[in-house]
Amino acid sequence: MINRLTIIGAGLIGGSLSLALKQAGAVTHVVGCGRNIDNLIKGVELGVIDSYQSSIAEAVKDADMVVVAVPLGAMETAFGQIKGNIAETSVITDVGSAKGSVVGIAKASLGEQFNQFVPGHPIAGTENSGIEAGFATLYQNRRVILTPLEETSRQAVQKVDAMWQQCGASIEYLSVEHHDKVLAATSHLPHMLAYAMVNYLSGLNEHDEIFKYAAGGFRDFTRIASSDPVMWRDVCLSNGDALLEFIEGYKEELDMISSAIKDNDANALLALFGKAKSERDSLIGNC
Amino acid sequence: MINRLTIIGAGLIGGSLSLALKQAGAVTHVVGCGRNIDNLIKGVELGVIDSYQSSIAEAVKDADMVVVAVPLGAMETAFGQIKGNIAETSVITDVGSAKGSVVGIAKASLGEQFNQFVPGHPIAGTENSGIEAGFATLYQNRRVILTPLEETSRQAVQKVDAMWQQCGASIEYLSVEHHDKVLAATSHLPHMLAYAMVNYLSGLNEHDEIFKYAAGGFRDFTRIASSDPVMWRDVCLSNGDALLEFIEGYKEELDMISSAIKDNDANALLALFGKAKSERDSLIGNC
Repeated sequence: MINRLTIIGAGLIGGSLSLALKQAGAVTHVVGCGRNIDNLIKGVELGVIDSYQSSIAEAVKDADMVVVAVPLGAMETAFGQIKGNIAETSVITDVGSAKGSVVGIAKASLGEQFNQFVPGHPIAGTENSGIEAGFATLYQNRRVILTPLEETSRQAVQKVDAMWQQCGASIEYLSVEHHDKVLAATSHLPHMLAYAMVNYLSGLNEHDEIFKYAAGGFRDFTRIASSDPVMWRDVCLSNGDALLEFIEGYKEELDMISSAIKDNDANALLALFGKAKSERDSLIGNC
Repeated sequence: MINRLTIIGAGLIGGSLSLALKQAGAVTHVVGCGRNIDNLIKGVELGVIDSYQSSIAEAVKDADMVVVAVPLGAMETAFGQIKGNIAETSVITDVGSAKGSVVGIAKASLGEQFNQFVPGHPIAGTENSGIEAGFATLYQNRRVILTPLEETSRQAVQKVDAMWQQCGASIEYLSVEHHDKVLAATSHLPHMLAYAMVNYLSGLNEHDEIFKYAAGGFRDFTRIASSDPVMWRDVCLSNGDALLEFIEGYKEELDMISSAIKDNDANALLALFGKAKSERDSLIGNC
């Protein structure tokens, strides 16, 4: 049971966490904290949070658990205001989708309190954002990756682990570097490809017509291009090296298809597409 | 009302057409024709078709309407067996997702009966295939593109137009060249990108782990990589020139994102992602 939970940055991710913990009866009081007061008032009205606070320093003072759910680009400011304002028994975690940069920021900001910080990343979300987009089941059967360091308090890790389990998630442990590589491949790269796809088509002369004839497959394929641009800008700035490596590798794979088309190589095309279909069907399921 | 409809290649597309017309009371008898007799027997058992025939020459003899729904790579064989075996009053149409190649084949095969052929393409489908995957509502509120030529009989066009309207589709007219360009952009290109994505990730060392952490966005993004490899091989062979042009153009667009990441250019990244989000949201809707 968490007595007092403070969520800094109460949007889709933070709001859903609060709703899930409330539904599980695993939290007594949730404080929302952020710069957008209208959003926080809406959160109280909707019952997503119990009270709000615009000052991070004030909001974290009596918190048992602080969840930093701001965009990656706002982590530095947030962590800067946590330091010195939390009790020694408090636990801090985050939900950032790149971990190397957040760990660096937390280490620099928290100093001797860095051992109270458990880096985390729930693999969940929708293309919608804002506290009103939150829902209690967002983390059901989803994975949450924790990337604790050697100096991280074991007790703090256990508390964060228990919190996410109460939301219905399963918890996995990876190193910071490994997390950032895996996420660059499965999440950051496809977002770049989808953004590029929509921009490319919308730059063509007949773009109105092109979107008009777009069918279900195209809709699915480009859904992630409706994701929050600020969040994805920050991901690029935070995990750029891994992402650049994967974009280059991807282009080489795409060139293999181009070459097969250029050569009218029916067998090569069939092999490439057959391999992709069987990999996807066996690893993800035909859904 | 179509008295006798012959569907050559009774899979998802042909089977769904038959079911839709039956539900609308717009067809009296549907003959399925194909090489896989087990599939045809299953089609009769499921009530998707009324009878079957393995010989195309026999199947088209008394047909009022012939729908060629074979993979693009099998069009040449199919059209070769239609010629001379259909009445002068019969109408022929197809469902191929590239039109230039089919028109070329039909012209060469049908000779003086070419004016009875209306090139068509329903913009609908799922990643599943086979006659048992068919369902009556596949074409509801979908577009069907017809690409008649100057010599195409107006009466034949009207009959094909009416048939698809009975299935709940809206009919659009494009030139053959324009169709192939628009489809290369909205359908063929995204399929190549998704196939390349799955192949690229499955070739990485930690691919099991990578697929393990794939979330909903990745599932949506790669869904079309579960599509039929034979069909997509044939699309590449039939519409290769347009497709190659779009792959190259796409890579340039992707390079713009890479450059912005390399330069840590926050403003450029935000502009690129913001443009894509607003284009997609306004043209397709945030869904």
